[in-house]
Amino acid sequence: MRIALDAMGGDHAPAVTIEGAIESVNSFEDIDIILVGDETALTRELDSKRFPPNRITVKHASQVVRMDESPVSAIRRKKDSSIRRGIELVKGNEADGFVSAGHSGVVMATALLVLGVSVLVDRPAIAAIMPTLKLPFVLIDAGANLHCKPQNLLQFALMGSMYCRFILGREEPKVALISTGEEDTKGNELTKETFKLLKEADLNFIGNVDGKDIFTGEADVIVCDGFTGNVVLKTSEGLADALIRMLKREVGNLTTGRIGYLLLKPALRNFKKKTDYDEYGGAPLLGIQGTCIISHGRSTAKAIKNAIKVASDFAQKKVYEIISSAIEDDLSQHERLPIGKK
Amino acid sequence: MRIALDAMGGDHAPAVTIEGAIESVNSFEDIDIILVGDETALTRELDSKRFPPNRITVKHASQVVRMDESPVSAIRRKKDSSIRRGIELVKGNEADGFVSAGHSGVVMATALLVLGVSVLVDRPAIAAIMPTLKLPFVLIDAGANLHCKPQNLLQFALMGSMYCRFILGREEPKVALISTGEEDTKGNELTKETFKLLKEADLNFIGNVDGKDIFTGEADVIVCDGFTGNVVLKTSEGLADALIRMLKREVGNLTTGRIGYLLLKPALRNFKKKTDYDEYGGAPLLGIQGTCIISHGRSTAKAIKNAIKVASDFAQKKVYEIISSAIEDDLSQHERLPIGKK
Repeated sequence: MRIALDAMGGDHAPAVTIEGAIESVNSFEDIDIILVGDETALTRELDSKRFPPNRITVKHASQVVRMDESPVSAIRRKKDSSIRRGIELVKGNEADGFVSAGHSGVVMATALLVLGVSVLVDRPAIAAIMPTLKLPFVLIDAGANLHCKPQNLLQFALMGSMYCRFILGREEPKVALISTGEEDTKGNELTKETFKLLKEADLNFIGNVDGKDIFTGEADVIVCDGFTGNVVLKTSEGLADALIRMLKREVGNLTTGRIGYLLLKPALRNFKKKTDYDEYGGAPLLGIQGTCIISHGRSTAKAIKNAIKVASDFAQKKVYEIISSAIEDDLSQHERLPIGKK
Repeated sequence: MRIALDAMGGDHAPAVTIEGAIESVNSFEDIDIILVGDETALTRELDSKRFPPNRITVKHASQVVRMDESPVSAIRRKKDSSIRRGIELVKGNEADGFVSAGHSGVVMATALLVLGVSVLVDRPAIAAIMPTLKLPFVLIDAGANLHCKPQNLLQFALMGSMYCRFILGREEPKVALISTGEEDTKGNELTKETFKLLKEADLNFIGNVDGKDIFTGEADVIVCDGFTGNVVLKTSEGLADALIRMLKREVGNLTTGRIGYLLLKPALRNFKKKTDYDEYGGAPLLGIQGTCIISHGRSTAKAIKNAIKVASDFAQKKVYEIISSAIEDDLSQHERLPIGKK
């Protein structure tokens, strides 16, 4: 598998992206990396590193998308950005997948433009995997679309459900909608309208969930607009981090705590691993005609490496083709399903 | 202080609300409770309990607002609900404050109708206090207004800031706005417009925060619409609960873990206390002309007791009067502030 990596994307690029690329080729025999970005800078940096020869190559891109740019302006003015060039490699079959820890809105808009969406899908969405007390669930949209219509959320639900079925291997995934309460009537206009569509669609829809029930593991797929998804994802991340620190501080205040802490260390390590977003690496952009994985802006080299692995698996299993054809089949069987209608 | 309690509100009413009322009068010498709800049922239940005589009275209300009712329908059809009657007691000076674990949207709408808003405020908001690694912060709006305009969020920021200053005693509270990234340009239309208003207002505005930075304690007041606020509050609650369970399970898997756990127990207890929403009890509805405290639907008796204490403190300190006059002063000094404009 050849994975194109946006070498300029993320808070600590390109040092961390290069590190992540090197860790990848060292860890995975069947993955080669194309670093996309400023050739001079990348080559200089690579010269001082050791890695298996020919497994990492560089593709030049003269522009970098800043985190404060709007997708519209980035697409118009940065035709030679590392994001654009990377996605073009996928389009031209020079890479099997693309990974970026850069501006997720720009990655989404560029993928939409260059690769296009699957039949019957209006907008792609980010599908993030999150841990619960039981099995992990798929959060969709985790941040690609800040303004959504009920129709978009229905399509996210269908794509998330397919992803969960074919990739996580769950039969008839239980789908829930994030709202402010379990009752049908709770929520804002978007969630109320979406509720009606989900109820009518060919989905195993179990109703609304509020934030409190997200982590109980009752739902396999949790649907929301990208603003809410971003808030859920980042709040969870921030809180998990804060809680571990609070707990360590509480422990530090006790005399017996230090001994307890030493004895508990392996449990804490396992626990951290389960709740550590670096382990998940990246989230696929579902609904586009190709493999595109979005990583956190604060990604470490380990997170980049894991995102590259996700991209490789995703491309190998041809996930986007499976989802496309499953949605198409689904529609032909259930004509009343209003998917694709604008 | 005489606090009116919606005896019919919450998932476990009236058993839990009665228990909370009894715990309150046993714990706080200066607080008497008026239980509002079905007189026959409440009196029967109270007859079997022991509590200081005359400290708990009953005010009849024949109707109960269900959690799936819309505020509009509840206000139109349930003029004798426990929520309406309780808030009317505050209006008529028969109670100093009102506490409800019932439908927060209906409490908000009824308070707006019966008590009215402070001068220059369009809509009240729920101000919830949340723990961080440093000091707790005020989350506003935590769920009252699911549809907001930038103007509303500006007013929430001002009210939250006043609350933080006068009640939590912080000089020049740092105010932040929840968005999908720190950059000015990140977010949806609502947050982008609000960003501009907050920047121009007489506030110590420190910019956008994303979910990841909520719990670092950098901001004293965090502003968002009520849908987002509800998601943040409930997701945090659900995750804190899930993380503690996961940690306990990890510990259970180790032989040394059991000893470690015993040694750690006091730390875990302190930690749970800090992150336990029951401890905070209830959140005030800021911007209305009176004291109104909203409790979680899943409130335990302890949470109800704590909410009653919050109501009593709030009424004693005349918080709503302080906020009203502070906002008025603020406006007269800064005429360019567009508050109150519709």
